[in-house]
Amino acid sequence: MKHNYKAIVSYDGTRYYGWEHQPNTDMTIQGKLETVLEALTADEGRREKITVIGAGRTDAGVHARAMTCNFLLDTACSEEQLMAYMNRYLPEDISVNDLRICADRFHSRFKAQGKTYRYTCWYGLSRPVFDRRYVYILDRQPDAERMRRAARYMTGLMDYKSFCGNPRMKKSTVRAVDSIRIEESGGYLRMYFHGSGFLQNMVRIMTGTLLEVGWGDREPEDIPGILAAGDRSKAGFTAPARGLCLMKVDY
Amino acid sequence: MKHNYKAIVSYDGTRYYGWEHQPNTDMTIQGKLETVLEALTADEGRREKITVIGAGRTDAGVHARAMTCNFLLDTACSEEQLMAYMNRYLPEDISVNDLRICADRFHSRFKAQGKTYRYTCWYGLSRPVFDRRYVYILDRQPDAERMRRAARYMTGLMDYKSFCGNPRMKKSTVRAVDSIRIEESGGYLRMYFHGSGFLQNMVRIMTGTLLEVGWGDREPEDIPGILAAGDRSKAGFTAPARGLCLMKVDY
Repeated sequence: MKHNYKAIVSYDGTRYYGWEHQPNTDMTIQGKLETVLEALTADEGRREKITVIGAGRTDAGVHARAMTCNFLLDTACSEEQLMAYMNRYLPEDISVNDLRICADRFHSRFKAQGKTYRYTCWYGLSRPVFDRRYVYILDRQPDAERMRRAARYMTGLMDYKSFCGNPRMKKSTVRAVDSIRIEESGGYLRMYFHGSGFLQNMVRIMTGTLLEVGWGDREPEDIPGILAAGDRSKAGFTAPARGLCLMKVDY
Repeated sequence: MKHNYKAIVSYDGTRYYGWEHQPNTDMTIQGKLETVLEALTADEGRREKITVIGAGRTDAGVHARAMTCNFLLDTACSEEQLMAYMNRYLPEDISVNDLRICADRFHSRFKAQGKTYRYTCWYGLSRPVFDRRYVYILDRQPDAERMRRAARYMTGLMDYKSFCGNPRMKKSTVRAVDSIRIEESGGYLRMYFHGSGFLQNMVRIMTGTLLEVGWGDREPEDIPGILAAGDRSKAGFTAPARGLCLMKVDY
């Protein structure tokens, strides 16, 4: 009998072309998960095609501490056995942290109520050797207080078209961003974004724009005009994928 | 005028053949540091050979959070400029965290009074994606309380010949190990070793032996006999380099 499984997955996105299937490569997170699950069905004697639905589609190079996904599967394994099987055969940069049977109606994307992303920068004089793959290294320290002032203009229920990396986006670009928290600790600058959902590259473009404010290249008061323009070219640069991590999905 | 510089260095040892120069490779930490310093002397118009002395010689694949080293150098740079130069040209898996002119008589190896090493294992059901290069993944959970009982027999001022990885060691194998602390947190098992100094592979052989006790393959009470034998073959396996990190050198 098929069950709907809900899994919490971590991954280091460095080597991958993002969450979603891409043509001509098997280096996607979704692809790696499906390959392992399909191998399990083959081990059990009836190879099946499995589709893993993720709460969001992280870009190439973006990481996740707790991506939520779900998939329908018929297996003789218990939840514990299934999780152990996946962790045994997944590459070492992908991990299943939790796995349970959930309600049939659960859909990790449609039921997602909110997401938390973290963007991590470093401006210290030394270098972050041990987490260098998860950090964007800045060559000068931005003014976090200016960034916080700019961030206040970025929250709300608004049209974020200027912060959308997809120029052919046909659907609504209205999103609700509840909070942007900016923390400094040692040489780290960490930005936490919480919202109902985010457009393609949206957190990275918000980060790039906030950094430009922090460096004095823009004013905090420029943000409302950027938002009103509905034009990607008015916002700042797209901060590199390596600093971005999906921290949590709310249901 | 030549000054004696004291530097605190971090490195991810994964890609390197250890701290010390090796024939036929430039992939050593000492080699990378010397190359950058020699390039600086060349930039300043009088290329010189520089020797960087480390507090210890970490093995291939072993990491350091705070290796202390020193070197004699004549440069027009201030301490801040020298540190910035080094961090600009070193590979991204080596960082200079602190650098100052010190007394001429300071010698990072001869003056070292003690060292702290940490060995990190993981036995959780998921996998440690983000620090996987710094962790030894166990396939079963050892009993930490048994390991603590065994560790008590391993501290003191004793002959550690059974825990020495160099079969041709000519000098004294007597060392003082003050403390071995074993901590569990989440799926992590961390062992902290503090002592006056350690023989080649000593922390990794102690770790392997403690793990065998933790798995029930040996008894805590076997340790005195292993020490008394003065025979490497009586001790446990050499735990992999990836879990080991030099945390601190005392002066």
